Amino acid sequence: MYANFSETIINRLSIYMHYLIEQEEQGKQLVSSYDIAQVCGVTAGLVRKDLARFGKFGVKGVGYDVAELCEGIKRILGLDHPLRVAIIGIGTLGSYLLSFQEFFNGNYEIVAVFDTNPEAAITCIASETGKPVNILHLNHLGEVHEAHQIDIAMITTIPSEAQEATDHVVQVGIRGILNFTSSHVKVPMGFVVKNIHFVNVQDSLIYVLQFSQYG
Amino acid sequence: MYANFSETIINRLSIYMHYLIEQEEQGKQLVSSYDIAQVCGVTAGLVRKDLARFGKFGVKGVGYDVAELCEGIKRILGLDHPLRVAIIGIGTLGSYLLSFQEFFNGNYEIVAVFDTNPEAAITCIASETGKPVNILHLNHLGEVHEAHQIDIAMITTIPSEAQEATDHVVQVGIRGILNFTSSHVKVPMGFVVKNIHFVNVQDSLIYVLQFSQYG
Repeated sequence: MYANFSETIINRLSIYMHYLIEQEEQGKQLVSSYDIAQVCGVTAGLVRKDLARFGKFGVKGVGYDVAELCEGIKRILGLDHPLRVAIIGIGTLGSYLLSFQEFFNGNYEIVAVFDTNPEAAITCIASETGKPVNILHLNHLGEVHEAHQIDIAMITTIPSEAQEATDHVVQVGIRGILNFTSSHVKVPMGFVVKNIHFVNVQDSLIYVLQFSQYG
Repeated sequence: MYANFSETIINRLSIYMHYLIEQEEQGKQLVSSYDIAQVCGVTAGLVRKDLARFGKFGVKGVGYDVAELCEGIKRILGLDHPLRVAIIGIGTLGSYLLSFQEFFNGNYEIVAVFDTNPEAAITCIASETGKPVNILHLNHLGEVHEAHQIDIAMITTIPSEAQEATDHVVQVGIRGILNFTSSHVKVPMGFVVKNIHFVNVQDSLIYVLQFSQYG
């Protein structure tokens, strides 16, 4: 267990890790702090400082062993064991997430997909890994969680149903929530929500562009 | 042209706007600051304060006219005219974005999809709006931009090709970049990049959960 570092540092570690996974796949065995820095838009010094907070990685003048550093960061982030994910809401976004390979690099496994629409809740679709994934009615969330201990619920419903879906997730005791809808959702103490609002990011890009154009 | 407000305020306006679009679709004509506050997880007072920065909206004791407020926020954000989007990289993410209805609520139009893979660059697929979208080789980006004046390029390549794609976007003069890859990309002054790194957000959620569990 490591100390509770800031989101900024943890976000950089995640970026380093995904770069390392990519390098490992390409058969690379050693990288320098300069290589890593290049990807994250920081200095090599900051990469070394970030990593030094968590232990001794790499050999001076030689670099970092890709596989070893990758495993090290996974351990720090808590990604060194399988993590079970449930998707709540099987619209286009839910379907996309099922096919999103990058999620699986971090040991994520999509256990099941839930929907309140009874018509959706009868099919079974294959994820990117080739493993079939069941689409179940949201009423079954509790029993699936009991059997599989779900770490994260991804909320991909329509915005107006996001809170209801979240309440259901909280009620069965899933503590990590990734909210992909544009709605704000509330959870009690001990539960954690992270929001991924990409339409809002896009809107704010347009806003900023107005000033970068005329300013 | 409005003053350059903080990203936090602009992000909230975007959330308010998408809520209003949803309400409008459901035929609702009036909303209160309490209704809006509920969605965004802020107080009704903050909603009123946010809106008051940009002009006079709503009638005390009556509420806000949904269509009028929605148009007002679109004007503030620069979303009151059609915005042209190009997708660079037609993997699963690029394909998903093509089908993502929420993008089109803000007047976004996907003009074309580009890829460097010559096999991808021969097909033509339909977007959610039913309009066919051409998949072109990245070499054609300049001429398409000249004909259509693209506002935003969405980078959805594999991470290791993100900078190269971005360089191409910058070279033809598209100033808004939405980077969906896990790579950092660099742009010169006058260009704006916003990053949407959802795998990194998910990784940091797992990290935070460790402490919320034991802490």
